[in-house]
Amino acid sequence: MVLSSSDESPGQPAFLFDLDGTLIDSVYQHVLAWREAMQEVGIGLSVWKIHRRIGMSGGLFVSALARELPDVLDAETLARLSDLHVERFIEHYDSVQPLPGARELLAALTDHGVKWAIATSGPVRYAGLARDLLEVPEEIPMITRDQVRYAKPDPDLFLTAAHRIGVDVRNSMVVGDSVWDLLAARRARALAVGLLSGGYGREELLQSGAYRVYDDPADLLVHLDEVGVRPSA
Amino acid sequence: MVLSSSDESPGQPAFLFDLDGTLIDSVYQHVLAWREAMQEVGIGLSVWKIHRRIGMSGGLFVSALARELPDVLDAETLARLSDLHVERFIEHYDSVQPLPGARELLAALTDHGVKWAIATSGPVRYAGLARDLLEVPEEIPMITRDQVRYAKPDPDLFLTAAHRIGVDVRNSMVVGDSVWDLLAARRARALAVGLLSGGYGREELLQSGAYRVYDDPADLLVHLDEVGVRPSA
Repeated sequence: MVLSSSDESPGQPAFLFDLDGTLIDSVYQHVLAWREAMQEVGIGLSVWKIHRRIGMSGGLFVSALARELPDVLDAETLARLSDLHVERFIEHYDSVQPLPGARELLAALTDHGVKWAIATSGPVRYAGLARDLLEVPEEIPMITRDQVRYAKPDPDLFLTAAHRIGVDVRNSMVVGDSVWDLLAARRARALAVGLLSGGYGREELLQSGAYRVYDDPADLLVHLDEVGVRPSA
Repeated sequence: MVLSSSDESPGQPAFLFDLDGTLIDSVYQHVLAWREAMQEVGIGLSVWKIHRRIGMSGGLFVSALARELPDVLDAETLARLSDLHVERFIEHYDSVQPLPGARELLAALTDHGVKWAIATSGPVRYAGLARDLLEVPEEIPMITRDQVRYAKPDPDLFLTAAHRIGVDVRNSMVVGDSVWDLLAARRARALAVGLLSGGYGREELLQSGAYRVYDDPADLLVHLDEVGVRPSA
């Protein structure tokens, strides 16, 4: 008996991409920018602890750091930190490059008729820069921190992205490099694909619920069949 | 029956420390220095792939990177890369700090009568800078790349360090942040303690054979009893 495919198969998944460490090689510039911002307000924190928080929104990042510090930070300093980070990051932006295969992966999805969008914890100021770097067509939505109430690890960014491209988030693959992406994906009931290109370890990503882990966008591109993409749908 | 303790117990272990990412917060400065050096010779490589190789000697690092690149590098460029990295790293050195608890850990070992030494894949030029930063007494040996034939993941650095302080390497704890430290420790038949402060994940360190994993030197200091140190021997 042949089952009706419309009853059985959800069809090709849509793809919801994180930006930093997933499509562009910018995680270390963020690390540097946070370190410089913290030094300006007199906070010393080990660099690895900064790295582990990249991918959270600036606000959550600052709260998470505050938890690690021996002294209580005043509200004014906390607020200033996020702004300083944005300024310092923009200064480092010239050295940011697309990750290998990122442009090709996005173009291939478009060619295969697969819907996709980008959802980032960063502000809209970065997103425009990244759109140029990745040659993202104007009609592709890029959801930024300021468009949702809560950033990752809350699911709002991915839920909004799915809504904007008219897909069911439960039939979407979230592609991200950080534990925060994967946690947000699970809360959105999407499947999550982890990329090592943000500097997290494979095991961390698997333990955070990754359905599959690849090196970088180029590696995902050659394994698209593993995540449900059929050529030229 | 009470067994003679000299037959049964190897006594307090000695400690052989890696330097970068283990005692000083310098891994990201190394990442930057490699990226800058590679750009100068026209090589673009994702930053996470650089990070994963930190802790190898400059020579091995360059060979490992060469394997990842699509084009074959000529011998002259390869040789120049190591030198450029040293130059760029020294420029970033001003921002290097001791990791939390590093000075206190080393001082506590000395107080408890535990022998220790430092063994680094870096050149002697860095080691002097780190000695000042960590307030390492002059009588403590610091083994550097130029003092051994093969750097990590070969065991020579740790074997030489153990020899210089007159201890059996098989009764030593190697403390390091990278997979290369842990692999070198196992080849030397030492036990390895992993620290997360270099940015590797806990699971990677455990899978590379860590006997125990701590956050940073401060965390190891409060758990010294777990790795065989008895107060004031």
